Amino acid sequence: MARFLKNREKAKGQSPGALIFVGTQKVDTVNMRLIDYDDKNLVEKELVDIKDGAPYKQTRSVTWININGLHDVEAIGNIGQVFDLHPLVMEDILNTGQRPKIDDYGSYLFIVLKMIRFDRDTQKIVNEQLSIVLADTFVLTFQERPGDVFDPVRERIRRQKSRIRGAGTDYLSYALMDTVVENYISVIEHIGDQIEDLEEDILSGQDDGVMEKIHLFKRETSYLRKSIRPAREAVFQLSKLENDLIHEKTLPFLKDMEDLIIHATEAIDTYRDMLTDQLNIYNSVVANKMNDIMKVLTIFAAIFIPLTFIAGIYGTNFEYLPELKYKYSYFIFWGVLVTIAGASLYYFKKKRWF
Amino acid sequence: MARFLKNREKAKGQSPGALIFVGTQKVDTVNMRLIDYDDKNLVEKELVDIKDGAPYKQTRSVTWININGLHDVEAIGNIGQVFDLHPLVMEDILNTGQRPKIDDYGSYLFIVLKMIRFDRDTQKIVNEQLSIVLADTFVLTFQERPGDVFDPVRERIRRQKSRIRGAGTDYLSYALMDTVVENYISVIEHIGDQIEDLEEDILSGQDDGVMEKIHLFKRETSYLRKSIRPAREAVFQLSKLENDLIHEKTLPFLKDMEDLIIHATEAIDTYRDMLTDQLNIYNSVVANKMNDIMKVLTIFAAIFIPLTFIAGIYGTNFEYLPELKYKYSYFIFWGVLVTIAGASLYYFKKKRWF
Amino acid sequence: MARFLKNREKAKGQSPGALIFVGTQKVDTVNMRLIDYDDKNLVEKELVDIKDGAPYKQTRSVTWININGLHDVEAIGNIGQVFDLHPLVMEDILNTGQRPKIDDYGSYLFIVLKMIRFDRDTQKIVNEQLSIVLADTFVLTFQERPGDVFDPVRERIRRQKSRIRGAGTDYLSYALMDTVVENYISVIEHIGDQIEDLEEDILSGQDDGVMEKIHLFKRETSYLRKSIRPAREAVFQLSKLENDLIHEKTLPFLKDMEDLIIHATEAIDTYRDMLTDQLNIYNSVVANKMNDIMKVLTIFAAIFIPLTFIAGIYGTNFEYLPELKYKYSYFIFWGVLVTIAGASLYYFKKKRWF
Amino acid sequence: MARFLKNREKAKGQSPGALIFVGTQKVDTVNMRLIDYDDKNLVEKELVDIKDGAPYKQTRSVTWININGLHDVEAIGNIGQVFDLHPLVMEDILNTGQRPKIDDYGSYLFIVLKMIRFDRDTQKIVNEQLSIVLADTFVLTFQERPGDVFDPVRERIRRQKSRIRGAGTDYLSYALMDTVVENYISVIEHIGDQIEDLEEDILSGQDDGVMEKIHLFKRETSYLRKSIRPAREAVFQLSKLENDLIHEKTLPFLKDMEDLIIHATEAIDTYRDMLTDQLNIYNSVVANKMNDIMKVLTIFAAIFIPLTFIAGIYGTNFEYLPELKYKYSYFIFWGVLVTIAGASLYYFKKKRWF
Amino acid sequence: MARFLKNREKAKGQSPGALIFVGTQKVDTVNMRLIDYDDKNLVEKELVDIKDGAPYKQTRSVTWININGLHDVEAIGNIGQVFDLHPLVMEDILNTGQRPKIDDYGSYLFIVLKMIRFDRDTQKIVNEQLSIVLADTFVLTFQERPGDVFDPVRERIRRQKSRIRGAGTDYLSYALMDTVVENYISVIEHIGDQIEDLEEDILSGQDDGVMEKIHLFKRETSYLRKSIRPAREAVFQLSKLENDLIHEKTLPFLKDMEDLIIHATEAIDTYRDMLTDQLNIYNSVVANKMNDIMKVLTIFAAIFIPLTFIAGIYGTNFEYLPELKYKYSYFIFWGVLVTIAGASLYYFKKKRWF
Repeated sequence: MARFLKNREKAKGQSPGALIFVGTQKVDTVNMRLIDYDDKNLVEKELVDIKDGAPYKQTRSVTWININGLHDVEAIGNIGQVFDLHPLVMEDILNTGQRPKIDDYGSYLFIVLKMIRFDRDTQKIVNEQLSIVLADTFVLTFQERPGDVFDPVRERIRRQKSRIRGAGTDYLSYALMDTVVENYISVIEHIGDQIEDLEEDILSGQDDGVMEKIHLFKRETSYLRKSIRPAREAVFQLSKLENDLIHEKTLPFLKDMEDLIIHATEAIDTYRDMLTDQLNIYNSVVANKMNDIMKVLTIFAAIFIPLTFIAGIYGTNFEYLPELKYKYSYFIFWGVLVTIAGASLYYFKKKRWF
Repeated sequence: MARFLKNREKAKGQSPGALIFVGTQKVDTVNMRLIDYDDKNLVEKELVDIKDGAPYKQTRSVTWININGLHDVEAIGNIGQVFDLHPLVMEDILNTGQRPKIDDYGSYLFIVLKMIRFDRDTQKIVNEQLSIVLADTFVLTFQERPGDVFDPVRERIRRQKSRIRGAGTDYLSYALMDTVVENYISVIEHIGDQIEDLEEDILSGQDDGVMEKIHLFKRETSYLRKSIRPAREAVFQLSKLENDLIHEKTLPFLKDMEDLIIHATEAIDTYRDMLTDQLNIYNSVVANKMNDIMKVLTIFAAIFIPLTFIAGIYGTNFEYLPELKYKYSYFIFWGVLVTIAGASLYYFKKKRWF
Repeated sequence: MARFLKNREKAKGQSPGALIFVGTQKVDTVNMRLIDYDDKNLVEKELVDIKDGAPYKQTRSVTWININGLHDVEAIGNIGQVFDLHPLVMEDILNTGQRPKIDDYGSYLFIVLKMIRFDRDTQKIVNEQLSIVLADTFVLTFQERPGDVFDPVRERIRRQKSRIRGAGTDYLSYALMDTVVENYISVIEHIGDQIEDLEEDILSGQDDGVMEKIHLFKRETSYLRKSIRPAREAVFQLSKLENDLIHEKTLPFLKDMEDLIIHATEAIDTYRDMLTDQLNIYNSVVANKMNDIMKVLTIFAAIFIPLTFIAGIYGTNFEYLPELKYKYSYFIFWGVLVTIAGASLYYFKKKRWF
Repeated sequence: MARFLKNREKAKGQSPGALIFVGTQKVDTVNMRLIDYDDKNLVEKELVDIKDGAPYKQTRSVTWININGLHDVEAIGNIGQVFDLHPLVMEDILNTGQRPKIDDYGSYLFIVLKMIRFDRDTQKIVNEQLSIVLADTFVLTFQERPGDVFDPVRERIRRQKSRIRGAGTDYLSYALMDTVVENYISVIEHIGDQIEDLEEDILSGQDDGVMEKIHLFKRETSYLRKSIRPAREAVFQLSKLENDLIHEKTLPFLKDMEDLIIHATEAIDTYRDMLTDQLNIYNSVVANKMNDIMKVLTIFAAIFIPLTFIAGIYGTNFEYLPELKYKYSYFIFWGVLVTIAGASLYYFKKKRWF
Repeated sequence: MARFLKNREKAKGQSPGALIFVGTQKVDTVNMRLIDYDDKNLVEKELVDIKDGAPYKQTRSVTWININGLHDVEAIGNIGQVFDLHPLVMEDILNTGQRPKIDDYGSYLFIVLKMIRFDRDTQKIVNEQLSIVLADTFVLTFQERPGDVFDPVRERIRRQKSRIRGAGTDYLSYALMDTVVENYISVIEHIGDQIEDLEEDILSGQDDGVMEKIHLFKRETSYLRKSIRPAREAVFQLSKLENDLIHEKTLPFLKDMEDLIIHATEAIDTYRDMLTDQLNIYNSVVANKMNDIMKVLTIFAAIFIPLTFIAGIYGTNFEYLPELKYKYSYFIFWGVLVTIAGASLYYFKKKRWF
């Protein structure tokens, strides 16, 4: 929402393609980690200067450089020069308010995704921009902050027998994107569980902040949808690109990822429908409660107001008021009161008000 | 809903294509049943080891192996090897959280559907994943638990004169899928009957759990739609595949199945619209009831409050209060009360409040 | 709705293409009426056995056989054999739960429509399945029960100079379908009139069963839409078929029928929108009524409750209560009461509550 | 709405293409006015007999015959013969319940539009059917009643230097259609102004017939949309026709008209959205008013009911009731009453109820 | 909304292509500013007569003439002649009620956009029509009033090393359009912030003009959508035009602008959804408040009405009323009252009414 827009805003009035970091600085230093592998060899090291990574660029082995932190415009700019990236690509990497997309620059693909996860501490959904540059012999990934989200992929790379060791940069990119998509599923599931719990609260008539929760979940699912929808488009586009960077044997895996992300968007839509239904039900529950309150009021009023009136009659001070003199008047009076009250109760009972 | 997602979740972080059972174990042992037939011969037997089924694979006769239970990853893995299936196919068979789909692997089609039926005991909709592998000379079906749902198809196979005996694997697959689709219809009909019954409850003003029922049916139809919609896509895709596995003379039957499944999805949408209408009507009924309650209250209050006030007047203890002395005061007093009450009643009657 | 589905249900588990009557028997005997004509000659006769119709099949004249009643599976089966129809066509004719459609079987077209009319006796919409087989030299029509709906077409056939006499089987089929579509219009118009009448009831605040009527009309329009929408698709498909059975000079008439059926579906949508608006307005009217009721209550309560309190004050039995002794107290007391009541009334008047 | 349908209805059962006037007769006599022009010459005359117009048909100059009044079937039929029109065209001209459309009959185009204007006298939207036959050398226009709507076009024709004088029948038809579309805009604007005025009434809480007005405007915009939507389709179709009747240099003008009619439909949709918003706001305003009413009631009741109760206590006739004897009781009593009332007021004030 | 339409209205009845200013005059004099540049030279000057700009037209350098003020029809007409523009282009420039669009006139493109900005003084969104004529060697821009919105572009032109100096008219047009699109973002962000603030007001139950604000924002977002949607279409169309005026190296920038404007429209839709949610929540808050009010009323009434009744009993003047004589009656009476009040309070407490 506003977040996206605000980022774009900051860059306003700048010449397109100018390198400016647009976002919030989330780490102290830019940190670069290189993994270079083929089916036989594996090199892992931290890069101090991006130029140290340049030699790996040419080799036939798969080179993956993961960059954490985007605020150091100069460092990022150097990467652009070393790997010969288009100015607009560099601008998009630095602007964390991008919409997920895939751009085909011929010799490389530029992929932007939003990584989404649920922060257990703040109980909030946090998102981070992931930019992937997929070239023939190398993959660059740019994250806003360090994280362990790609550790399972690193683990698979370290196992020499794994499928990833025998495959190319396209499969590595797929594996990274698939990890991101699986994170979507896990965030959706987390919210989904809460939404399903909410349902029972509503039907049992509990009312502690139901409105606020429905509203919060609506915003969260709306936010998720806004991030995942364009990601879905991007994933679909990927398998339809006519670019040699994507090998045919990777296609079934991309198709599988498509199924997964369709799954994710359908689940969001289902949860959103559930929230709408819940709001309707909540409103009906509130209206029913109102009816109950009014019934209590009406029953009390309808029974006691006439009785009070009758008592009022015999509280008047008319000098000539025959009933007052009669000895059994008081008991007859009580009899009348009880009869009226009983009749009223019977009437409301018959109307099934209680 | 969450169910789907949860299944996917369990497999997260795994290398794609790795064989892991994702779901709930629903039977004790994996059970394999082979039927091999052509227009002349018929063989039926239980397989202990999938390798016993291998010889039937090559013959020109139609070989149908139905596997119940998916938890034995090794057994299922063997099937994959014997019948030479792609790792992703094996993964999808074992992961019961698949979205219905058709994948064309050239020499065979892989079809995933959800079987849905209404469990009379638990009064709940249960679903089960059905995977079909349709090849030139054999059909493999994978169910999560044994069931008698395919018995009518078996019966038809046993009758030598039936159309199915003269047809190929595509017709067998069609017959199996058609059975699944007919089960959708029967579940929808079951819910539909309940929804139509609900309607009368609402209009007659009965209120025992109407909200809860509307809500329950909304969830159930939402769940059905989520399962049947992609099945419809899959069915449509099937007749559009340019794959020799589907013979031209099977096409009219596929078209017929398409009609049936369109029917099913349209019926679900109709029932969902009905539920929305019912909720609106229920809300109006509640609002009308509120009006009735308020009318009762207002009539009682508007009649008796002024009367009580008048009685109160003559209950005051002013020393000089002329009316009290007059002999007929009490009767005039009653006359005034009755007149006021009558006028009020007439007023409300004219306003058609009762 | 359920009707459609129930019919499908009965046939469940049957081999596709098996001949079973699915529906409600609506006539005692199957009744077959043949009309054979060209621009010069006209033959009309009742057929006892379908084989009596066979000779007309070959001639170049247009042969129209109308069959009323579908329960006699054998008789219908014979027709299938005589006219060489595909088993699925025969099955669809007998199953009255079909969705309107057009199937192209090369040498003939198979058209299914729903005939809809308003039954003045039961005040209900009744529908009936009409199946049309359109071949080069003959047209077969299958109705569930006899009716006079096609009499105008018969009349036009009997007039030798009419356009229909000079045209082929496609024009005859068009004329029959056009009659069905015009019946849709007339049913929609009938409901539309009632919906427009309802509007005035709502705005004038009348409340006798408004909810029930809105609801009934919603169901009826929903039902109509469900029948007419696929009919529209079928009609559109017809003029797009590349089949020699449809001659070019019939196309403008098909286009005209398309316009008519678009008209019909648009009118249904308009009426449905009107019903939704009416429900909204009805709810607003109910809410306004509530406000009026509450105003009456509040005015009464706000005026008399304080007055009663004041009367109560002077009804207390305090021994030392100075005002009671004063001679003009009672009149001053009345003055105060009237002043308070007047002030309250003025306040509510200013607030425009009455 | 019903209007359209009723017209169709009357013609039911008639052979298609039969000439019957369907509509309401709006003028006494059919009136025909011919204008024939090229860039040099101009002839204007009233035609008594359509045959007097026949000679102009052949000439290369543009011949425009405008016919007012459609009830004289014979006169209209003659026009059809003289200008060689298809029977279905003639039928459509006479049936004023047509849906806007364009039919391409090869040598001429047949265009049906609805002319809509706001009748200042009846304060209602009136519509009229305009049929245009656009041929190579002549244009026929059929209106239901005479009107001055085309006078600006006639004026432009009379000015010898105007673009229309140098252009062909396609430009003339465009100019006529453009006039119709501009009338749509003017009607929409008229309603739009009223809708915007309504907004202020609602927000200021005025309630005189707001519901009825919202409802009326909804119907009117619904009606406009129903007329203009198909007109838009027709206009779009016109510039896409591959017919030599439309010259390339007319295309930019058609494109301009397309923009205008998109504008019109978007404006209608915007106004409809505004009406929906207004209804929502009106309902909220009503609910807020209810809250206000209830607050008044509750404040009165909550203050005076306890006070009355306390007065009631000291109105009891218990023989031993100590407080009654005490000299300052009455003043203490008042003190208690005032304290309670003050506390209540303070409580409601703090709750911000007033 | 009405604004657009009113402008069209004024021009009604005019011959298409006639030059009439339609709009509100926003400046006193028409003002023309020329900038002519290539990668080496830069000329900037105010033009008194458009003919002074004519010589720059032919040169290979990029010529940008910005015209402020449209009311001087003759001056604008001259521009049309000097630069040889189609009459419809001139008409559209002068008519400020245009819908955003791109028209391809072969040798030049004609682009219409709405410039939107938030006027801090009036707190309103103001819009202005921007027309761009993009030819091979020159760009004409027409604004309704002078403004500093293009100053950043001018600044970039003045810097000799900037990308814009090395690019052609297409890049200049892109830069101008991009500025307009960035203004959209900034206006949306401004409204978005207010909408998000509103949310907290609603949930905290504050009620000062919430309805009015929701309504105002709905109108503003509706207005923005109406302006930006067609602009999006126009931007998309631009990169799909097969016109040599757009060079291939400009395409990535157009693609970037597309992303930005998709972003803008998605943000508007998100804010609109938020407003709808807010209205729902506001209504629920109002209904909940009503429940609270009713609870207060009912608790007071249900407690004190029975008590008053009991006091009334012992206020009657029956001669034989045994309890009155008993010495401890008064204290027992109080005991009963307190017990009843306590029981009621306990009951409501248990119902969790307070």
